[in-house]
Amino acid sequence: MNKNSSNIMALAPNTPNKRETVCIFGTGDFGRALGHKIIQAGYPVVFGSRSTQTSSLIPKDAEVLSHAEAAQKAAIIIIAIQRQHYNFLTPLAEILHGKVLVDVSNNLKINQYPESNAEYLAQLVPGAKVVKAFNTVSAWALQSGTLDASRQVFVCGDDMGAKQMVMDIVRALGLTPLDQGSLLAAQEIENYPLQLFPMWKFPILLSLGLTAFFFFYCLTRDVIYPYVYENKDFSFFIVISIPNRICPILALILLALVYFPGVLAAIIQLYRGTKYLRFPDWLDKWMLCRKQLGLVALAFASLHVLYTLVIPIRFFVRWRISSQIISQALNNKTEPLNTTNAWLSDSYLALGILGFFLFVLLGITSLPSVSNNVNWREFRFVQSKLGYLTLILCTAHTLVYGGKRFLSPLSYRWYLPNAYMLSLIVPCIVLVVKFVLVFPCLDKPLTRIRQGWERNPQYSE
Amino acid sequence: MNKNSSNIMALAPNTPNKRETVCIFGTGDFGRALGHKIIQAGYPVVFGSRSTQTSSLIPKDAEVLSHAEAAQKAAIIIIAIQRQHYNFLTPLAEILHGKVLVDVSNNLKINQYPESNAEYLAQLVPGAKVVKAFNTVSAWALQSGTLDASRQVFVCGDDMGAKQMVMDIVRALGLTPLDQGSLLAAQEIENYPLQLFPMWKFPILLSLGLTAFFFFYCLTRDVIYPYVYENKDFSFFIVISIPNRICPILALILLALVYFPGVLAAIIQLYRGTKYLRFPDWLDKWMLCRKQLGLVALAFASLHVLYTLVIPIRFFVRWRISSQIISQALNNKTEPLNTTNAWLSDSYLALGILGFFLFVLLGITSLPSVSNNVNWREFRFVQSKLGYLTLILCTAHTLVYGGKRFLSPLSYRWYLPNAYMLSLIVPCIVLVVKFVLVFPCLDKPLTRIRQGWERNPQYSE
Amino acid sequence: MNKNSSNIMALAPNTPNKRETVCIFGTGDFGRALGHKIIQAGYPVVFGSRSTQTSSLIPKDAEVLSHAEAAQKAAIIIIAIQRQHYNFLTPLAEILHGKVLVDVSNNLKINQYPESNAEYLAQLVPGAKVVKAFNTVSAWALQSGTLDASRQVFVCGDDMGAKQMVMDIVRALGLTPLDQGSLLAAQEIENYPLQLFPMWKFPILLSLGLTAFFFFYCLTRDVIYPYVYENKDFSFFIVISIPNRICPILALILLALVYFPGVLAAIIQLYRGTKYLRFPDWLDKWMLCRKQLGLVALAFASLHVLYTLVIPIRFFVRWRISSQIISQALNNKTEPLNTTNAWLSDSYLALGILGFFLFVLLGITSLPSVSNNVNWREFRFVQSKLGYLTLILCTAHTLVYGGKRFLSPLSYRWYLPNAYMLSLIVPCIVLVVKFVLVFPCLDKPLTRIRQGWERNPQYSE
Repeated sequence: MNKNSSNIMALAPNTPNKRETVCIFGTGDFGRALGHKIIQAGYPVVFGSRSTQTSSLIPKDAEVLSHAEAAQKAAIIIIAIQRQHYNFLTPLAEILHGKVLVDVSNNLKINQYPESNAEYLAQLVPGAKVVKAFNTVSAWALQSGTLDASRQVFVCGDDMGAKQMVMDIVRALGLTPLDQGSLLAAQEIENYPLQLFPMWKFPILLSLGLTAFFFFYCLTRDVIYPYVYENKDFSFFIVISIPNRICPILALILLALVYFPGVLAAIIQLYRGTKYLRFPDWLDKWMLCRKQLGLVALAFASLHVLYTLVIPIRFFVRWRISSQIISQALNNKTEPLNTTNAWLSDSYLALGILGFFLFVLLGITSLPSVSNNVNWREFRFVQSKLGYLTLILCTAHTLVYGGKRFLSPLSYRWYLPNAYMLSLIVPCIVLVVKFVLVFPCLDKPLTRIRQGWERNPQYSE
Repeated sequence: MNKNSSNIMALAPNTPNKRETVCIFGTGDFGRALGHKIIQAGYPVVFGSRSTQTSSLIPKDAEVLSHAEAAQKAAIIIIAIQRQHYNFLTPLAEILHGKVLVDVSNNLKINQYPESNAEYLAQLVPGAKVVKAFNTVSAWALQSGTLDASRQVFVCGDDMGAKQMVMDIVRALGLTPLDQGSLLAAQEIENYPLQLFPMWKFPILLSLGLTAFFFFYCLTRDVIYPYVYENKDFSFFIVISIPNRICPILALILLALVYFPGVLAAIIQLYRGTKYLRFPDWLDKWMLCRKQLGLVALAFASLHVLYTLVIPIRFFVRWRISSQIISQALNNKTEPLNTTNAWLSDSYLALGILGFFLFVLLGITSLPSVSNNVNWREFRFVQSKLGYLTLILCTAHTLVYGGKRFLSPLSYRWYLPNAYMLSLIVPCIVLVVKFVLVFPCLDKPLTRIRQGWERNPQYSE
Repeated sequence: MNKNSSNIMALAPNTPNKRETVCIFGTGDFGRALGHKIIQAGYPVVFGSRSTQTSSLIPKDAEVLSHAEAAQKAAIIIIAIQRQHYNFLTPLAEILHGKVLVDVSNNLKINQYPESNAEYLAQLVPGAKVVKAFNTVSAWALQSGTLDASRQVFVCGDDMGAKQMVMDIVRALGLTPLDQGSLLAAQEIENYPLQLFPMWKFPILLSLGLTAFFFFYCLTRDVIYPYVYENKDFSFFIVISIPNRICPILALILLALVYFPGVLAAIIQLYRGTKYLRFPDWLDKWMLCRKQLGLVALAFASLHVLYTLVIPIRFFVRWRISSQIISQALNNKTEPLNTTNAWLSDSYLALGILGFFLFVLLGITSLPSVSNNVNWREFRFVQSKLGYLTLILCTAHTLVYGGKRFLSPLSYRWYLPNAYMLSLIVPCIVLVVKFVLVFPCLDKPLTRIRQGWERNPQYSE
């Protein structure tokens, strides 16, 4: 965008649009990068620094002055120095009185200090209007101009006018300011950029553990057993066949684990007869990562679909089918259509397709922009009704896949049942308990408890 | 997040960050749940209640006082009681003068009362600053802390300062306030949580009706006919084969119905010679649910893709192919490659793939976060140009799939044409009319009409 | 929504909710359409026009007066006329003093005038409060009421109160106002609706060029060569087989081109010893369209997946497989399982599946609503770590697909190597250079440079 601001100035030298000077304390990397950007956006910039000589890296159009001189030139002062050095601001308190101080600092650890840096700054310079901003933007991104990532800048502060001034600068840099309220929000804003998918840790660790277990389980049954007893080399099974066993198993177990805590919570509430007692901590945490569990389950389900759809292209499968056909042809034998097998095969495929389809729908609804556009009633309808339907379809898919094999002794190599049988345990428990909870004799008191009724009111004293 | 607010207090006892007391009228389920959350966020909370004794369920850190006493302790009063009981506020009018009243109520039906609850409250207590908020949040979600769904809280009110105070509380609870303007927006905000996919009703009912019709149509042709005349049991066709006929048919018809109203509107405008006359109501409603029609069509198309891709894994298909190969082998017969069939088969697959690909692109563009990032010109380009290209590709896919079968008498069992032939009627009409409308002799006057020109200006008097 | 505003008025005739009169200058198409909508939202509307007689098209409930009379009736005046005619406002300057003027104009070209229309308006009527709004909404969309597209209205202006008034009207029309800051943002807002996917031009042109090249390359090798030397007609290959060669090639090359500029930038920074020198222009532009390059690559990869999964349904493939089986059966020959081939086939399929899966994950993370919900650290983790893993998996997929064919002379028809070999050049270069850059002797200085260190500080003088 070409702002042609010089042109505007020529036409109307005293226009109110003239950008006000911005002062930056600190000539470190972030201060310089921010200065560059702010100059590009048409603001005069003045740097405040201990020594006014290390000017080689500083943007050419910017002045470098002492802290006191620089502060006097601007109404907004961006403090681009680390919290440990904030002390030098105390003697400047008089000059900074009434000015807008922008705290851009970050810490190295979550909750490193008892109070946030911005609140600490507000205590050091009580007369100034402190605003927290810009800490979620990286210097490298500002420098290179490639802000592919989030353009959101969280802003908080106690003075509305000061916040407005900072938000205008944020917008002028092409970023999106998000008002987070008063300075109390600063701690959260400072912790935000330090997080690395905190809600995903448990689901991912759990699925890694389960993957490892089922990998060795299937390896034993499908590769080592035939090698030991039939001397057949099926080692290439570890590339597609075994992953295609693990993926659906994990998808089903994790999906069931999404609905397990809800069922547990219902039992606990029925037993306690109140909803006003806190759940145990582990249950709270489990409930908070249900969305992530579900999305990991969806990832495994998608992989299962891809692995299944390439089956007919696999060399091994083509070889096996053609060997069967050739041996039938050589034996002059034509089999009639086994309708039961056709029914079973089509049924488990259809159940799988419908289950996966609903699963993807659930995933799409959990996209932030979609879930923001549905109300609470619609969200519950999708996540609860459609969610259970998905679980039922996927469990049925696995049951029908098993079909007649459950009782066949061939399925129990080394007394190990087929892996998919293990995957049915959790979903079947969840579905049976949920089915029991739907009966009116349990559903009615549960509904009343969730509306605030208590069996023994003294409980919550 | 650990706010460590006690620590801050110790450092700066008179800091402006100290949260102000919030008063809640009503100790019902929602009032208590909201009170719990607000206490957790660091605000002192005082409840106003008729009887100050039913305190067992009330959060421990909260005081319970009479309405008048409680109201005097706070600048913000949350009215967590039902509209029918608002009358008790009239005698308190003097105490409530100048206070911020937050209306959190919901109704049982859409547009239950002539004016919104918040506006009714503003009339009852004329001296108070009424703000509508929190009605889109459920008590259960507040209680359990599992706000997986939308975190948006719509806020409206006539007093900017009062709105700011409420929005700060909303943010402190970890929710996102959305300013909806003046109190006139309250009615819409109160209706919002009562909706259950209002725009989806027509598309879903229509597709259910069409699904039922085509199911019985295909059942007659593909299962009953061979059973009656050839005594073959193809009942398992109802699991995959018939759904895989219904899905593409519905996808094509619904996609055509997305573009039908646009074509109708053009004809009506050409005939009337003006754009300033309202369309008939049914056309207006049809136009408003085009996006939903398109997404349902996409769902059917996706199912069709999945059903098609599992074809080679189906037991029946494997059996049929191997029977064919064995019979050829036993007859010592090798067929040469039929290039025409190869062309037809590859063409309809390729057309289907490209059509589906564009269809998915259209679906992605209709995601709220994506459509918010394209301007009007880009949106029209995608939805109109790419939309018609999708319709053309999908129609061509069906036509080439039919191939030589259109004229074969075998396709007309019991005089019923193949189901896919029926699906071609609507898209072909839309495409032909659209093609006619593209000719300059019709396109020019239409463009002028849409730019505001009128053939007979007296029309709109 | 039924606002029942008449009802409210009856109850409280002097309520502050009464909508204030809005004046619209100009009775052109956009002015009338906007007037219609504003009347529907419950505002009294008065039009200002040169001649007060052309009233037939104007909404019935609106008055038409002279400019001066109309302006006196309202505090807000929407200027729905073109910039060329703004001069007529100069004599009205006195009446317009202190009023809110809303500039809704658009230009025909990007940066058509040195200053934005809104700034020009502010200079013409210095006493008025100018707000830019509504220019991103189309008259046709307002008229037909079918706002499927973005409901966002960018608003900017120097006066906060004036902006609030305009934003309330925007909300009353069911649109979403987005505050863009001061009037300096007007130029960008005016350019916005004129853009047509500006960032997508280069990626799409590049991929069209590469598609054309590889199409003729594959046509020569796969259709013309067998026709000339073996007199076989494989012309139907251009429908699926050749697209299914082009798509993966383009996906891989474009994906590598996403990571190429990052590697180049690292080399340039290492060579220069500073990050404070600007990159060459072409590199800057290249870096800015990486997201679009990646999404085009993902589109090609998705098509490749679809084309690959329909392979077993293709008539030609079924014919070829059954011919092979029949000839084996007739020759009484049964081949043992070739474990190496099974390994190779399963490996390249599995690598492709995992690569595609990660690629889709990257695509989902680049959705605006998702990328707004991850912080900078998480975004870099996904786009950089997962991105390189995707590139490695996809390159390995292609290498294993090649397998033993690299050295086979049959692969070099007319001295042309297989097309997929060409596609490996760019990704291999990127991966090798990246691998070299990971070594500490290069990674350490690079990290220091990116933190602001300079080898020869005098450079940036």
